Amino acid sequence: MLATIGVTSLDELASAAVPDSIRDSEPVTSTLPPAASETEVTAELRALAARNTVTVPMIGLGYVGTITPPVIRRHVLENPAWYTAYTPYQPEISQGRLEALLTFQTTVADLTGLPVAGASLLDEATAAAEAMTLLRRAGKAASPRFVVDADTLPQTIEVLRTRAIPLGIELVVADVSGGLPEGDLFGLLLSYPGASGAVTDPTALIDAAHERGALVAVAADLLALTLLTPPGELGADAAVGTTQRFGVPLGFGGPHAGFLAVQQKHARQLPGRLVGLSRDADGNPALRLALQTREQHIRREKATSNICTAQVLLAVVAACYAVYHGPDGLRRIAQRAHRMAAVLAAALRAGGVEVVHDEFFDTVRARVPGRADEVADAAHAAGIAVRRVDADTLGIACSEVTTVAHLEAVRAAFGIGADTAAPDTAGLDTAGLDTAGLDTAGLDIAALDAGTADALPEGLRRSSEYLTHPVFHEHRSETSLMRWLRRLADADMALDRTMIPLGSCTMKLNAAVEMEPITWPEFADLHPFAPPADAAGTLELIADLERWLAELTGYAAVSLQPNAGSQGEFAGLLAIAAYHRSRGEAHRDVCLIPASAHGTNAASAVMAGMRVVVVATAPTGDVDLDDLHDKIAEHRDALGALMITYPSTHGVFEARVREVCDAVHQAGGQVYVDGANLNALVGLARPGAFGGDVSHLNLHKTFCIPHGGGGPGVGPVAVAEHLVPFLPGRGEVGAVSAAPHGSPGVLPISWAYLRLMGPDGLRRATLTAITAANYVAARLREHYPVLYAGADGHVAHECILDLRAMTKDTGVTVDDVAKRLADYGLHAPTMSFPVAGTLMVEPTESEDLAEIDRFVDAMIGIRREIDRVAAGEWPVTDNPLRGAPHTAASLMDKWDHPYPRELAGYPTGVTPGVHDRKVWPPVRRIDGAHGDRNLVCSCPPVEAFA
Amino acid sequence: MLATIGVTSLDELASAAVPDSIRDSEPVTSTLPPAASETEVTAELRALAARNTVTVPMIGLGYVGTITPPVIRRHVLENPAWYTAYTPYQPEISQGRLEALLTFQTTVADLTGLPVAGASLLDEATAAAEAMTLLRRAGKAASPRFVVDADTLPQTIEVLRTRAIPLGIELVVADVSGGLPEGDLFGLLLSYPGASGAVTDPTALIDAAHERGALVAVAADLLALTLLTPPGELGADAAVGTTQRFGVPLGFGGPHAGFLAVQQKHARQLPGRLVGLSRDADGNPALRLALQTREQHIRREKATSNICTAQVLLAVVAACYAVYHGPDGLRRIAQRAHRMAAVLAAALRAGGVEVVHDEFFDTVRARVPGRADEVADAAHAAGIAVRRVDADTLGIACSEVTTVAHLEAVRAAFGIGADTAAPDTAGLDTAGLDTAGLDTAGLDIAALDAGTADALPEGLRRSSEYLTHPVFHEHRSETSLMRWLRRLADADMALDRTMIPLGSCTMKLNAAVEMEPITWPEFADLHPFAPPADAAGTLELIADLERWLAELTGYAAVSLQPNAGSQGEFAGLLAIAAYHRSRGEAHRDVCLIPASAHGTNAASAVMAGMRVVVVATAPTGDVDLDDLHDKIAEHRDALGALMITYPSTHGVFEARVREVCDAVHQAGGQVYVDGANLNALVGLARPGAFGGDVSHLNLHKTFCIPHGGGGPGVGPVAVAEHLVPFLPGRGEVGAVSAAPHGSPGVLPISWAYLRLMGPDGLRRATLTAITAANYVAARLREHYPVLYAGADGHVAHECILDLRAMTKDTGVTVDDVAKRLADYGLHAPTMSFPVAGTLMVEPTESEDLAEIDRFVDAMIGIRREIDRVAAGEWPVTDNPLRGAPHTAASLMDKWDHPYPRELAGYPTGVTPGVHDRKVWPPVRRIDGAHGDRNLVCSCPPVEAFA
Repeated sequence: MLATIGVTSLDELASAAVPDSIRDSEPVTSTLPPAASETEVTAELRALAARNTVTVPMIGLGYVGTITPPVIRRHVLENPAWYTAYTPYQPEISQGRLEALLTFQTTVADLTGLPVAGASLLDEATAAAEAMTLLRRAGKAASPRFVVDADTLPQTIEVLRTRAIPLGIELVVADVSGGLPEGDLFGLLLSYPGASGAVTDPTALIDAAHERGALVAVAADLLALTLLTPPGELGADAAVGTTQRFGVPLGFGGPHAGFLAVQQKHARQLPGRLVGLSRDADGNPALRLALQTREQHIRREKATSNICTAQVLLAVVAACYAVYHGPDGLRRIAQRAHRMAAVLAAALRAGGVEVVHDEFFDTVRARVPGRADEVADAAHAAGIAVRRVDADTLGIACSEVTTVAHLEAVRAAFGIGADTAAPDTAGLDTAGLDTAGLDTAGLDIAALDAGTADALPEGLRRSSEYLTHPVFHEHRSETSLMRWLRRLADADMALDRTMIPLGSCTMKLNAAVEMEPITWPEFADLHPFAPPADAAGTLELIADLERWLAELTGYAAVSLQPNAGSQGEFAGLLAIAAYHRSRGEAHRDVCLIPASAHGTNAASAVMAGMRVVVVATAPTGDVDLDDLHDKIAEHRDALGALMITYPSTHGVFEARVREVCDAVHQAGGQVYVDGANLNALVGLARPGAFGGDVSHLNLHKTFCIPHGGGGPGVGPVAVAEHLVPFLPGRGEVGAVSAAPHGSPGVLPISWAYLRLMGPDGLRRATLTAITAANYVAARLREHYPVLYAGADGHVAHECILDLRAMTKDTGVTVDDVAKRLADYGLHAPTMSFPVAGTLMVEPTESEDLAEIDRFVDAMIGIRREIDRVAAGEWPVTDNPLRGAPHTAASLMDKWDHPYPRELAGYPTGVTPGVHDRKVWPPVRRIDGAHGDRNLVCSCPPVEAFA
Repeated sequence: MLATIGVTSLDELASAAVPDSIRDSEPVTSTLPPAASETEVTAELRALAARNTVTVPMIGLGYVGTITPPVIRRHVLENPAWYTAYTPYQPEISQGRLEALLTFQTTVADLTGLPVAGASLLDEATAAAEAMTLLRRAGKAASPRFVVDADTLPQTIEVLRTRAIPLGIELVVADVSGGLPEGDLFGLLLSYPGASGAVTDPTALIDAAHERGALVAVAADLLALTLLTPPGELGADAAVGTTQRFGVPLGFGGPHAGFLAVQQKHARQLPGRLVGLSRDADGNPALRLALQTREQHIRREKATSNICTAQVLLAVVAACYAVYHGPDGLRRIAQRAHRMAAVLAAALRAGGVEVVHDEFFDTVRARVPGRADEVADAAHAAGIAVRRVDADTLGIACSEVTTVAHLEAVRAAFGIGADTAAPDTAGLDTAGLDTAGLDTAGLDIAALDAGTADALPEGLRRSSEYLTHPVFHEHRSETSLMRWLRRLADADMALDRTMIPLGSCTMKLNAAVEMEPITWPEFADLHPFAPPADAAGTLELIADLERWLAELTGYAAVSLQPNAGSQGEFAGLLAIAAYHRSRGEAHRDVCLIPASAHGTNAASAVMAGMRVVVVATAPTGDVDLDDLHDKIAEHRDALGALMITYPSTHGVFEARVREVCDAVHQAGGQVYVDGANLNALVGLARPGAFGGDVSHLNLHKTFCIPHGGGGPGVGPVAVAEHLVPFLPGRGEVGAVSAAPHGSPGVLPISWAYLRLMGPDGLRRATLTAITAANYVAARLREHYPVLYAGADGHVAHECILDLRAMTKDTGVTVDDVAKRLADYGLHAPTMSFPVAGTLMVEPTESEDLAEIDRFVDAMIGIRREIDRVAAGEWPVTDNPLRGAPHTAASLMDKWDHPYPRELAGYPTGVTPGVHDRKVWPPVRRIDGAHGDRNLVCSCPPVEAFA
């Protein structure tokens, strides 16, 4: 590979490609220890895991005990066909996870009673924040006030506040039990049930808000909605929440899939990803991401949300949970949890404890003046974590994992003996109680059960059906679910089948040894609000990771709270804004962003209250320095920040990055270095050392967290010393994610990666990634022009192939090439970003020469096919490229194309037997526009497939 | 389903199908507790696991520390595509695992220097026993004597003795260090290295044996053979051993894949499965099981071995390990283990401890007169298990997992201080020592290392190459290995894609919750000769399982030692023979076996020293009682046993089974009830209660251990009270497997299954399985005659479809139907067993109605295709059945068949998109005879695929 590139060593390439001005002259002396073996790393992780103490989670607060069915754990969470998949931007080879996500959307839509739900948001708190801004732009009210039910999860309120401030939204947290507060408002968020556990009828409040011209979102518990009238039927405009309790491990706070569902008329206002039905070239139904023009890739600073990465893997888990249990099973689980809570409340009351609410779903609030700590400690000693609300008050949340033994332990913790008399059951309506699911080992509990009525408001009993689609009824056995999952996975092309040369997405190996710990119960089953001592191992892992990442990037500190790159960007920009504000320079609100930047940059800047000013690109692909200086001059007094991606999204190490940073600093601005391309820097150069004040990293790009089919991501924010006080959730700036540490459940992956590699290994990986990109560029240059290169002629870790002239000459498009790659058994590179009409290729260090050559050879083969179109041999409207991808079925039909079947299906020649790497796409090219015109975002009736 | 069958309830069906005379009138009161949830069962298994203590394994004795690469653990051991596959009897849809097994064979062949190796044997001890009988029949010597090197693993010697006795082989265990013992012999088994660790040159002994007309097998350590001249090059006729240390977890003794390799001329004498290369209908290379006419299915009592189930899943692991590390990696691992041992020996000598051998590979034998217990205890206290050979002697085995820290701990256990002076290195040849792999944390060890020469005999240094095939060089990264494994898996059809309606093989769900514990380190990493206290959890699990299985089958006791059904049969027959012998009736050596029995029955009987007498089948499919009575009368005084499968292999509950048993008992014989079909009985009837004296069970059929692509199996033997003393390894009868408890590593699966089901669940599963079979029979009866049914018209848990008349009328064969099912995306049923020209279908309780209907509908669709052949629409030589299976590539070619492409590829009609369940076979119909004529049993040169 080096010979093809024209260098003699990795170090020579580093010297040639990476500017001297930023390159570390010697390896960074890191706190990161030298590389350890897989066996050693596993042993260290086991030791960390052993320092965690898993208790029965009865804290509630939006994180509830759930059982991940082992069939789902093994066949999704532990299956690379699911977790190594990329975001389904190539829908023809992503039908499996698109179907799973459509099932997720249908689950949410059915249960909330709102017809359109996306897939997915990052957590309940950010979903609520997205709902807040959605209501603002969807409604007609001019008011800046957003009223929030005080009985909302505290972390949701905090994230709402963080999000509201820069947007000028006035957040009013109010006790709404007596009605709406006085005054105007554009939106209202109610909680159903409330954080306290209480269930109250929101209808009057919804109506009142509507009367005042405001729109209403309801934060709802998805499981409770199997029993309660759903928000959509009560008149809500939107519903938000988490799907964690649908089988997703607690993971000390995440990752879990949040949801946001809306009325049909607001569908086009939805942030994030939305799967919709369309049709393929043969007229068959096919799925793809709908309405993509809403997204920040396209709308940039006009986007209404910066969300990009979702929580696909967890959304798939939640969808599988709904599919596996079906409506009856979910209702049974909900009813059982409710009965547990009702019986617990009865037991506490029988023991003289004040139970605050008469109507609740699964959470009991109990008052024990002055004794809350004592009771919580006693429960903890019995292995149960409850919520200490204040010195007098406790919350106890029941769930799928609650047993009668747990109830008895809780009762004992309250100091109530088992021999307390059962309450007088006269007058209680015990008819029709479902006690079948209740373990009757504790006889007195059974007696309580028999004598205790449900505690759900009768007027809110759900009467409407849900999950009526056959998919929720067909897979009631593990055998059937396993095969459904295999069939879906077989429709997709993930890293376990092919390289995914996605520019700027760094689709590298997600090693099994890194992945194994995330399903160990010690890491998976921790509640985010468990006492810190119970999470000692995970907290140490987090501290290690923050320290290591800070040193590798040259910053003073890192926060792992942001649970996606977009959130990291937002947090970084908030830090900059807060820094300026702290110095009395709140007016510094201009954010310079190069034209080539990720759209998320601009969207994040707007969310952080900044004004985006675009800096031009020079013909070299570098930032146009003249324009930069002009823009700085123009906005000197208002200059807040420059956001720059390094190496650039053009795949080039810009030589003058220090100059850029200096210019911004001299004008009083802060430099934000987007870490999207950090895989080209680790061990070679540190953004914090060459001018950055802030960066966000993508642990799912550079640090091996798998893409999961479109999430989870983790987007830590790293800052220089002067910005440390402004990290999220540390006082000056509020929280940006629901859980204190974001998504700790997947952090063992990155911890293991860094521990396995050590400083030398990381540097070598970076050099190898740069080598691979330069090798691709060197081999493909004569077939497709490489758009940009550094001064020395080298690219960084990715390269842009320019197809524009070819398209102009032949009519063959970037789409044609991308879809044809699927026929070759390969995943397409990034299409038309950052430059329309191009393909951006990032091979990463994880691909060996054989696989890179397979890709390069396919691209050359495609080039030859294009030449035949150019030569007039095939018309531009009917050739193997335009016809791509070809399904096997389409090749069995009558054949009247000018190219042969064999060539269509086996472009590289037939290599029969097991060595045949042919993967047949399940659908042909998908008509996206058709789907956008005819929006269908939940499981279509079966007849659609007839 | 019940309506289709014509009954109204499961219980009515049970009453109708199962004879009153054997049916339990009430549920068996079992020691088995009531069903528990998946969560509860996992918690109980975690508690059992926590009672095990995993130490560093330095005991040796054929079980050595190894690192299972996480990529192999996750993508093979934890992947249903591998573990739920069936034995590759349908090779066209088994090319993936066949290729993996060919790689296994090549690994063994290359390393042993012998050209033909099978895939696989059950363990090293039984492999040695198979080698013993192979040498006997392959050689020309008339002598009954088989000489065994006294420095052979004790468990191997014990199994050899167990096997030798009934065959009249005289086993001579002799110290051969001074040469062969006097006298004639037909065979010789040498150990290389010996159980003591010593490596001596076997050449002279091999030559001497050959001079006396005997053949020679060598028990060898496969890893050592990367450094030592292989047995084949030293003149050995065969080599045996285990591949455990190639990444297979210790599992308290198993399962691991044993090997047996032979010179080319003995290929047709190999017992068990042998993968060979052939070609398919299009002339492309394709793999299948070679020389199947050797096997017990065909040769029955003329078979030379009863081995059936192999250790495929573990053989795949071992093959992957060789592929992943390649020859250089294996050599490095071997060299490192050797260096560890050499340095340890030097350290002990430096401390004044006598090291017995000068030349060894990885195991050091040390003498500390009177102190062995003290040293072993001290090592154990430091977390290391060493071998206490006798009161004065210890063995310490190094391996891939050994570290310098372990060596230092062992030295400390010997009471040698770290400050002992390094030995005088003058005169030691230290040139060229590979110390690169050695951790140098312990400085004094490093000094010892520098001053210590290798301890391998210079004359035995291996000079020949091995593992030269590209497959051992192409997958050096996890990414590449993962994709290779996915590609292989995608070529196969396992339970994760389709039902496998294999009659008599009970391909039921292998639930994830049952599978998860087997890779937990507490179960996976136990050494079989660890102190019992270290295995307290596993031993309790074994005791539970033996107790539960005994009660469920109505027997007094169960031994889990037999590590396959064939070994269970053999053990059961040995018990019967020993019982007769104990009563002075050693002459009772006739074993009556119905004509319909599994071939293994007859082969086992011969191995147990019995004479097989076949009992005829009546037209009803039942045992011909007249013939039975005649045969009993004829052999009354010599009657040893009757072996009967119940329900019969005809899929019928014979009404008069008690009468059969009584007749045998009255004649002084014992009744052996083959448990192959136990899935039709559990919870309904108990063989031990209706007349059986012995049964073997198949935990991989009835009790959910997955088939693993052809193993592992577990074949416990269950006996009535009077036979308990004759269980294997309990004194009266020797061991039948190498490890005391056979294959405990997979027993958590069956334990979990029983715990999940409880007595009621087991009964319901049985009734459901019977229902499913009767439903298939009811729906297919009008399309294919059902050959046998019980008196009431019902079948048991499987049914036989009779295709003979159809074949006679149309020329379409059973093979055509079976292969055509692959085109429909289904696995074929059992072909031509127990009746030629038929298909035997066993749907099991794990398949839901939708999947069973898919199979039934496919069979009906095939019947309609046959009708078109019958009608003359298609010639018998060119129709979709004879052409089956069709690869996608074959349908892209020029098409000149009388049936359309679409019909060939999509017999059920095209259902596009992700709902398309089409799976394309990777090869077309395979020509088995061609492969047998041109036997190629190791990886073919790449050109074969050109």
